[in-house]
Order: sequence, then C-alpha cells, then structure tokens
Amino acid sequence: MDIHFLSVIPEVFPSYLDASIMGRAQAGGHVRFFTHNLRDWTHDRHRTVDDAPFGGGQGMLMKPEPLFEAVSAIREGAEAPLKVVFLSPHGTPFSQGKARELSREEGLLFVSGRYEGMDERVFTLADEVISLGDFVLTGGELAALAVADATVRLIPGVLGNELSAADESFEGGLLECAQYTRPAIFRGMAVPEVLLSGDHAKVALWRHENALERTRRLRPDLLDVREVSSHA
Amino acid sequence: MDIHFLSVIPEVFPSYLDASIMGRAQAGGHVRFFTHNLRDWTHDRHRTVDDAPFGGGQGMLMKPEPLFEAVSAIREGAEAPLKVVFLSPHGTPFSQGKARELSREEGLLFVSGRYEGMDERVFTLADEVISLGDFVLTGGELAALAVADATVRLIPGVLGNELSAADESFEGGLLECAQYTRPAIFRGMAVPEVLLSGDHAKVALWRHENALERTRRLRPDLLDVREVSSHA
Repeated sequence: MDIHFLSVIPEVFPSYLDASIMGRAQAGGHVRFFTHNLRDWTHDRHRTVDDAPFGGGQGMLMKPEPLFEAVSAIREGAEAPLKVVFLSPHGTPFSQGKARELSREEGLLFVSGRYEGMDERVFTLADEVISLGDFVLTGGELAALAVADATVRLIPGVLGNELSAADESFEGGLLECAQYTRPAIFRGMAVPEVLLSGDHAKVALWRHENALERTRRLRPDLLDVREVSSHA
Repeated sequence: MDIHFLSVIPEVFPSYLDASIMGRAQAGGHVRFFTHNLRDWTHDRHRTVDDAPFGGGQGMLMKPEPLFEAVSAIREGAEAPLKVVFLSPHGTPFSQGKARELSREEGLLFVSGRYEGMDERVFTLADEVISLGDFVLTGGELAALAVADATVRLIPGVLGNELSAADESFEGGLLECAQYTRPAIFRGMAVPEVLLSGDHAKVALWRHENALERTRRLRPDLLDVREVSSHA
C-alpha cells in the first residue's frame, strides 16, 4: 500500500513512520510512505497557505488554491490510485471497522489542515472526511498518523501473525480481556489462578467472561450496539 | 504545565512537540515536555520490557517491573505533581471535556504501551486510563500526543486568542460552521453571499444555523446528547 501525507509540517511524520511496527512494515515491503509539503504548491514569496475568513472572526483558514493544486499533482504523480482522506472534526468518527476498510485500499492520501480550519470548498476534493474523535487538535497530522497506523497494522503480514489483530479490542464488539505476564505474584497482586492452570478450555472461557465483564463495566455502550446489531 | 511521556520509542515525540503550536507553547513558557525511555528502568543486558502472557496466546505483554519503577522514579524526580494517564483501548473515550479538565493540571505523565498490551496490574499506577477511540493502534504514543495536543492548546495564552478555542467544534455541543476565505468564487464555487455582506448580526445567525444544520446532518448523535442534558 502507498500512503501519502500532505501537510504544512511534513517534518513531523518520519520519526513515527520509521519506528517500531510502521518501520518494519516499510522494511518488509508492505507499505510505502510519502510526505508532501503543501507550501510546495504556493506561488508567492511567503509561500502563503492561509487567509482570513469571510464574514470576520479570529484565526486563519487554509486557502483553497494550494490544496487543489497539491491533491491533483500528488494524484497524478502517484503509482497507485489514491483514496483522498481529509482529517477534520466534522468528519465521520474513526473506528476499527473503517481501519479494516481502508486496509484494503491500494493507496491513500491523508490531507491535514492547520490553523482554524479549511475553506469549505476544499472538501469537494475528499473521498472521505474522517474525524479522530470528539475533540479538537491543533492540526490533522496526529489524526492522519493514527488512522494510518490503525490501518497499516491490519495489512496481512504486518503483524507477526494474523491472529493478533483478530483477537483484540473492538474486533468482536468487546474490549480485550485482562492479560498477565510474569511474575505470578507482583507486589502482592496475584495473577488469576485459572491462567496458571494449563487448562486451555478453562482459560478460553475465563478470557471470554472477563472481556464481557470489562465491557459491561467500562463500556456498556458497546454492548448496546452489539445487541441491536444481533437483532438486525 | 509539565508533560512527561514514558515509552519504549521516546524518539517519536520531539519532532511533533517542537513543531508549530506545540513548539510555540514551549517557547512561550506555557508547557515543558519531557520524554523517558522505559528501557532505562530495566536491569538485564537486553533491556527487556515484555514477556509472554500467562495462559498462552500470541504476542507479548509489557512486564510490570519496569513500568512500576519508571512511574515512581519519574514522579519523584518531577518538579510538578503528576497526574498519571495510561493510554489503552479499555480506557474512557477521550473527549473535548476531558481535554479541558486536563488543561487545568500542573503536571501530566502519559504512559504508552506497545506490543499486545500491558500486564493488568500496571493499571493500579494510573490516575486515569484514556482511550483515543474505538480503534486499535500499534502503541499508545500517538494517543498520548493527541491527548497532550488537545490539552495544551486549551492552556490560556497558547492560542493567539482565547476565543479561537471557545468557538469551535464540540465546545457548544455542535460541529463548527462551514468557513470560507478568498477567493469569493473558486472554480465556480461561490462563498455564501451573507458572509460577504458585512452585516455582523446576519453573519452570526447564518453561522449558528449552519453549525446546527451540519450537526443534524453529519452527527445527529451529538444533538441527542445535547437535548438529554438540557433537560437534566
């Protein structure tokens, strides 16, 4: 998969993309990352990407011209067909299901805004507008990285084994169960005995019940959705 | 405010924290960032931070010992009292309200896991467990950065003006209205005429109605919550 990032601060991406699992995904040939500086598509001496809002108000907005030029140039220069994803608080809230969907694309272009927002007309460039959640960031870059990270780890071969991803939070509509490693007793806190029993059936049952109990206690809203969908 | 990050890949933080608004927040003395490598609290030659899960299963878990040592050492060495925040999919979903709450703290320590998860006992160290949303990342680092970013921008003085933050998505329970900058007509798309009128009252009314319409169309769930709370 080819993943492109367009931003006015492209220098923030590589340190994350070259580290840990994203770095290994690149080295393994599962994904290629490309970063683009929006200012490369400006034509004035100050490389201006923002302007004051019509109707007054504080803060600056991203101008339409550089964004239109950049998206079209990146699309033309890309080897893979690109799905264009804008990150913005008014987008569809990101979810594990959306990550799974994006993981099947050949190419993605994530467009991140800065300042107070973007001229509304730029969203006509978007195949999708995604919001990371109901909070406001200083820009879309962290949202783009998070969506890319959640997506790339689902590409077959990126994680050590496919089961790792299938087994975890949200995949079955539940939180993941509690997990423990050595030592069996740490500062007076003991690992649940069943996990030390070696009885695989009992362990599996405990894990399922624990996941259900945690979800009921911490995120009952996930169970509501699950019950509704199981009646559909 | 002092913000500490604990992780096995501390090298991913500075490029974001030194850029743009986070960089200016540091330069302006509003926040200080500190990164810590969890491996500094291991005592074996391989600086091991993970181990296999009890009860079997794939993937590795973060061991309790280095995390306990690290959190306690960072707390003792810190100048400000630290609220300890773990990032994990089973935490409370992050929101703008939580960002506002965290922005009043003197110090924060964000603890990010990698691998398949953390030994459950480490969460006894947490004052809060926060989830960025219902999706799974390869680690907590991007979640920690996003929570920090949303929090820092709310510290008085960090944004150019306080109104900027008060005006935007989720603050009034609504998405932000559509915004436009020059040119008035771009590729055949015109800015709504009222925004060019210079009539401040009409502009304010249009913006409120536009925000309401967008929220109703794109995120009706936000209005449900708002209606419920207005009856409380």
